[in-house]
Amino acid sequence: MYPLDRDPLLLTPGPLTTSLRTKQAMLHDWGSWDAAFNRITGELCEQIVGIVNAAQTHVCVPLQGSGTFSVEAALGTLVPRQGKVLVPNNGAYCARILKILSYLGREAVELAIPEDRPADPAAIEAALTADPSITHVAQVHCETGTGILNPLPEIAAAVARQGRGLIVDAMSSFGAIDIDAQRMPFDALIAASGKCLEGVPGMGFVIARREALEASAGNAHSLAMDLHDQWAYMQKTTQWRFTPPTHVVVALYEALAQHREEGGVAVRHARYAANCAALVSGMQALGLRPFLDAGVQAPVIVTFHAPAHPAYDFRTFYDGVRARGFILYPGKLTQVETFRIGCIGALTPADIEKVVDAAGATLRDMGIPAGMR
Amino acid sequence: MYPLDRDPLLLTPGPLTTSLRTKQAMLHDWGSWDAAFNRITGELCEQIVGIVNAAQTHVCVPLQGSGTFSVEAALGTLVPRQGKVLVPNNGAYCARILKILSYLGREAVELAIPEDRPADPAAIEAALTADPSITHVAQVHCETGTGILNPLPEIAAAVARQGRGLIVDAMSSFGAIDIDAQRMPFDALIAASGKCLEGVPGMGFVIARREALEASAGNAHSLAMDLHDQWAYMQKTTQWRFTPPTHVVVALYEALAQHREEGGVAVRHARYAANCAALVSGMQALGLRPFLDAGVQAPVIVTFHAPAHPAYDFRTFYDGVRARGFILYPGKLTQVETFRIGCIGALTPADIEKVVDAAGATLRDMGIPAGMR
Ligand SMILES: Cc1ncc(COP(=O)(O)O)c(C=O)c1O
Ligand SMILES: Cc1ncc(COP(=O)(O)O)c(C=O)c1O
Repeated sequence: MYPLDRDPLLLTPGPLTTSLRTKQAMLHDWGSWDAAFNRITGELCEQIVGIVNAAQTHVCVPLQGSGTFSVEAALGTLVPRQGKVLVPNNGAYCARILKILSYLGREAVELAIPEDRPADPAAIEAALTADPSITHVAQVHCETGTGILNPLPEIAAAVARQGRGLIVDAMSSFGAIDIDAQRMPFDALIAASGKCLEGVPGMGFVIARREALEASAGNAHSLAMDLHDQWAYMQKTTQWRFTPPTHVVVALYEALAQHREEGGVAVRHARYAANCAALVSGMQALGLRPFLDAGVQAPVIVTFHAPAHPAYDFRTFYDGVRARGFILYPGKLTQVETFRIGCIGALTPADIEKVVDAAGATLRDMGIPAGMR
Repeated sequence: MYPLDRDPLLLTPGPLTTSLRTKQAMLHDWGSWDAAFNRITGELCEQIVGIVNAAQTHVCVPLQGSGTFSVEAALGTLVPRQGKVLVPNNGAYCARILKILSYLGREAVELAIPEDRPADPAAIEAALTADPSITHVAQVHCETGTGILNPLPEIAAAVARQGRGLIVDAMSSFGAIDIDAQRMPFDALIAASGKCLEGVPGMGFVIARREALEASAGNAHSLAMDLHDQWAYMQKTTQWRFTPPTHVVVALYEALAQHREEGGVAVRHARYAANCAALVSGMQALGLRPFLDAGVQAPVIVTFHAPAHPAYDFRTFYDGVRARGFILYPGKLTQVETFRIGCIGALTPADIEKVVDAAGATLRDMGIPAGMR
């Protein structure tokens, strides 16, 4: 159906396009009890903690499953049953945190924010001052639902001033946007293998403040997602508690080596920012408008307004771009019709230009003229 | 350190040795929203349900994470909060079910059984008759802690006669030991990608009776492990609710093709049984005794008594066999010193003979003479 001479490129925020080297790491089987494999797990955790300058204060606890599993594990383990969590909400992944808290029976307070506005540190601090019973703030760093960047340094400072715990969902920012555990204190920060580290999906991890984690025994609602138990077992044995996704782990290990070789967070950020700039300017030249102001846009995923033209529908647009070798993402907004294009993965601006060409050609085929997008 | 001309073979019950073809399936990236990927998920679920003749009555719900995540998801979703679960306990994975139920706050009744004895259908039926408030039985099929096979057909019949729900942990038997949903009725049966189907680890699945699953909305303790929600979303969209482990999924799809090509459950069972026979007779010739009677031994993993000789310790034995290219497993018994060797994975009796040779050479090197094992 798609006679391409290569696999389609993924312009999606995880799973994303990984390097062949990363995938080739999966051509071996590893024993989960074997020292050679457990050395990889140990090094991987050290490297992850190092990326956010957290080695002195925090530990990395890897967890099987998708990123949501790690978010739920962090909330369920670190928020005590009598805790109360403030959730600044400007998108789909913030809403998911609220849903998780409701499943867990942990009290939650929503701070509603329009989807095109970043969370406001002053409003968060005011909410904490007004309600001393709030124990934690759960903040999404880059809200992938739109692509907006929330101001983590200022939010972390406000939460620290108020003496509460901060839990950060950094799923789509970790490894590509500067995070520093000493300058931006947090109790837990969550990410996953298949996002900006450019591994394959299948595991997440929580970077937890050692003291907070030590104090969390007995909180968890779930055996599989008990981070304290996972950590305690790993410390004792160097092994994962339950069968690890061995191939995903070694792929992430290889992806981390490439992250270092590329130059770490700063250089990856620069590449993604170049991708993002090429994408936005290219799409604007086609007459398509980004949903967010440039000042709040993270270089991770860009939401575009769908053309208002009656000939537009997402399915046809998707299929046309797909047939040209690129996989896009639907929008995640309920009020406005949008689609999304990712800037992350093993891609460069040269790839992005081809994506823009494919989008332009598809819109032409659909009979949507440039002036009517 | 181990100058082998190949990767060591895994004689472990998951992760295990997979075929190169299965691993090569992971050399591609897939979009989790893309129809091509979701077709694979759909076919995979159909094939899995077909393996246990459950298409008319059951559905397959795949789940991210290790096998334990799927066991917990099945218990948390299918047992209502006021439910009560009988757990016949003859090993480590039965004990894990009890631990999960305690996390979930679901009432549990343990039926203690010596680790070398299979669960007794008559005793289970008597326990159900004696306590009508028991709603479910949670039964491990092959208890991998020892390798014992519990008599699923008779247990399923007893539970059905008493009108209770049966939840089966078939993690290490699925695909290699005959299971038939019509002849052995169950509400849920759980397994994972990286066991007898010979995929790589990273996902599990629950084959759930459609009516039981339909009735389970609102039971789950966890968003990530809410099987009802996962299933409902998948029915509506054909997609996984949260990012799937795409590479693990396509590897399992490829492994399932090889399962069919080999001849399905019966032929895989025959190969594993031949592996098991070669292993037991070879090790016996070395003077090593299996822990279980042959009549209750599943052809999955064999527990051997450690040599009583003072020069024996597991670590040295493990390292010696490892240096010869084979990875064994420690015992999981608390009272008796043992080690375990798996019979499953992409292995034949010819490989097993080399494992036995490696064990024999290692014991000789350790100075443990044949008569003193
Ligand atoms: C900010 C954020 N949080 C959570 C998730 C959930 O991750 P997963 O789909 O791996 O469960 C995502 C996924 O893209 C995300 O971008
Ligand atoms: C019978 C049984 N149940 C549960 C599990 C747990 O699976 P996992 O280690 O993938 O969580 C295993 C693993 O070997 C098993 O053999």
